[in-house]
Amino acid sequence: MAPPLSWVHGTNDPDTDFSLANIPFGIISTKAKPRPHAAVAIGSYACDLEVFSAHPDFYDYYFPALRDHHGVFSQPTLNAFAALGRQVHHEVRDTLKNMFTDGHPFSHFLQVVGKTLMILVPLDSVKMHLPMQIGDYTDFYAGVVHATHVGTMFRGPENALQPNYKHIPVCYHGRSSSIVVSGTPVRRPWGQFVADPTKVPKQPETRPSQKLDFEVELGCFISRPNDMGMPIHIEDAEDHIFGYVLLNDWSARDIQAWEYVPLGPFNGKNFATTISPWVVLHEALKPFMTAGEPSDTELQPYLQETSRNNVFDIKLSADLQITRDNEAFKLTRTNAKHLLWSFPQMIAHHTVGGCPLRTGDLLGSGTISSVSELGDGGGSLLELSENGKKELGWTTASGGVQNRTFLLDGDTVTIRGFAFDDQIGRVGFGECIGRVEGALGRG
Amino acid sequence: MAPPLSWVHGTNDPDTDFSLANIPFGIISTKAKPRPHAAVAIGSYACDLEVFSAHPDFYDYYFPALRDHHGVFSQPTLNAFAALGRQVHHEVRDTLKNMFTDGHPFSHFLQVVGKTLMILVPLDSVKMHLPMQIGDYTDFYAGVVHATHVGTMFRGPENALQPNYKHIPVCYHGRSSSIVVSGTPVRRPWGQFVADPTKVPKQPETRPSQKLDFEVELGCFISRPNDMGMPIHIEDAEDHIFGYVLLNDWSARDIQAWEYVPLGPFNGKNFATTISPWVVLHEALKPFMTAGEPSDTELQPYLQETSRNNVFDIKLSADLQITRDNEAFKLTRTNAKHLLWSFPQMIAHHTVGGCPLRTGDLLGSGTISSVSELGDGGGSLLELSENGKKELGWTTASGGVQNRTFLLDGDTVTIRGFAFDDQIGRVGFGECIGRVEGALGRG
Repeated sequence: MAPPLSWVHGTNDPDTDFSLANIPFGIISTKAKPRPHAAVAIGSYACDLEVFSAHPDFYDYYFPALRDHHGVFSQPTLNAFAALGRQVHHEVRDTLKNMFTDGHPFSHFLQVVGKTLMILVPLDSVKMHLPMQIGDYTDFYAGVVHATHVGTMFRGPENALQPNYKHIPVCYHGRSSSIVVSGTPVRRPWGQFVADPTKVPKQPETRPSQKLDFEVELGCFISRPNDMGMPIHIEDAEDHIFGYVLLNDWSARDIQAWEYVPLGPFNGKNFATTISPWVVLHEALKPFMTAGEPSDTELQPYLQETSRNNVFDIKLSADLQITRDNEAFKLTRTNAKHLLWSFPQMIAHHTVGGCPLRTGDLLGSGTISSVSELGDGGGSLLELSENGKKELGWTTASGGVQNRTFLLDGDTVTIRGFAFDDQIGRVGFGECIGRVEGALGRG
Repeated sequence: MAPPLSWVHGTNDPDTDFSLANIPFGIISTKAKPRPHAAVAIGSYACDLEVFSAHPDFYDYYFPALRDHHGVFSQPTLNAFAALGRQVHHEVRDTLKNMFTDGHPFSHFLQVVGKTLMILVPLDSVKMHLPMQIGDYTDFYAGVVHATHVGTMFRGPENALQPNYKHIPVCYHGRSSSIVVSGTPVRRPWGQFVADPTKVPKQPETRPSQKLDFEVELGCFISRPNDMGMPIHIEDAEDHIFGYVLLNDWSARDIQAWEYVPLGPFNGKNFATTISPWVVLHEALKPFMTAGEPSDTELQPYLQETSRNNVFDIKLSADLQITRDNEAFKLTRTNAKHLLWSFPQMIAHHTVGGCPLRTGDLLGSGTISSVSELGDGGGSLLELSENGKKELGWTTASGGVQNRTFLLDGDTVTIRGFAFDDQIGRVGFGECIGRVEGALGRG
């Protein structure tokens, strides 16, 4: 059976990320409505959810679960909606899907009333905002292929993974203040690093980073919080997940290398993290669950899951644009399934000691690399260029050649991701874009 | 010249932390006014600042700097007040000091009108709340004595400090969701750790931490934010500081030891961090500035300060209470001056790559230990007990003996701190207290 059809322009297009099977939530503003408010993406449109709440009768009829929460779509973030929990998200998404479905009784409302009320706004006319107010951000290191690549580079294949790696979802607290929405420019950071690590004693200098990198990750937003002191059982973890975004964990490798012993990465990471604007709900991605990377290690009970299908089969790509024209060069192709740890495992680990997760908190998967004999599939330039030793090269349309080891000023990195199944359709994230701006001039 | 006297009960007491020289800000609630709101501490009283805003004429007369900000003292946090900047904090603190000063013309208002309006509330009748909404929390490692102690224990005296330690204020992103105000109980965390590190391969287990520890730190709250991408110059850093609190960075050493390579501490720290409730403004501590620990290393220009007096001469203590009676045993005596890095240096480093600090963000100094031949002055049990090898012992009033290597359930740790000068008076923090509760039962 083919998936149902929609009457909304662009929704049945096989290449759209925003099919009837998706219905992701985001925060938009438009020229006519400059105050940020909630929407979903459908085909080539954003469906303005705030409009519904201006019509309480319709609202209560179509969204009975929101009867006592009329304000949730007028907020500048999705936190209030996310806090209502999975069952409510499911019901609201279902109703919206019905409204967008060709011939469904609910579609009449939107097709007639919606037109007058300007509920559907072309996607290319809306400005996207950060979807959530993010309290704390935690970045994991669950991409075992990436961890193995990086570990091999710095410690050799015998000691690539640290002894704890297969026992705990290793991670660090990240910086929430510098998380930005797709499209926000990223300024090359100044920082302290050692240009010649072979010299003794090590002599640092302070300069703009020479090893600016991207990292392909999946981000996970928390819905329901846990009380301080109370762990989240792994089997309940799904109920604490709101949805997912693409994440580019921009990294300054030279700064990171000098600073990270013994307390972990800091200025090498905290200058910027970009996320895609539409939150794809857990419900929309559930049909694409598959087995992650195999483990040969017996897990502690609090990390044991009943199903092996604990990660998502999502095709991920990163491309590089060098000029402002549309010519893009392939950086990598990978898949979100290449994780040793699932988000429920990350949540169970994060809270095993009682750490409270709050609505809107963000978890990053860590860089997701795949394995390929051709050198494809590294989720970062650190891997693709072997820490600057190997140049990546592309032939441009005009016959020139472009080379990179790390990112140069003016480079634009675009991460995309989608899941697809004949019977279900395509569920994608849209784009996670950032353009590198030159470092500030100084003294 | 002796410091001026106050008409407010307890303020002239030589042992009070809340002298006329202090005037720290906090968030209180009372039985009569259960909604959290702003106050200052003076002698044995909290002075309810929200009351002023109910009387706009008085308010505008006494606090002209707040004329356009009538709401700041009615908020449940001090963020709005902090964001107004150092000059405003200074003016408001000065007016309040005058109001509390015996014979000052401003004191008349409070002595007459204040009584009727219940502006002064006994400190022992107020409930304290977290003073700020904390976006991000960063914990530094600037206590060079502590870093040397710990490094010596784990790597020997030759390699005690990592090569980067004297070049950059080493730190990590901490967890803001588990920062609690003094008095909040702290539950012993479960976690994964290796009980016998000599066994190969390492076999972790999941149990309540056996090495629960405290850490004496100073915390610093940010007032004025910087824009993303824009560093804060070290000479401007003071203008971004609101004030200071005591901080207990509770640590589970066994969990930390297993998890922290390569990305830094996580569950070993994120179960709880306690801060004292009253924010002592930068202005109040400025007279107590002194030279920090000497450095033999030439600093990068962005970390160079014009004055060597860049840290505070604050006496710090930590005591242990074992039963609910008042008998307390000395854990440590140290001083906030034993830092290699000042808060302005931490701020300059934190933002050198453009990381945005927001109003209410918290920086921890790292554990502050002093040097003593008697083994006193370690800012943590990790040092005092040499990671559990040496028992601390105390004789109780009833003639019994108490011993500790790490904290046991029911133990209460109280951190105190104050600066003192004959000409100025005493400026203190009150108490930073936490009692250890037993771990949750499981399965």
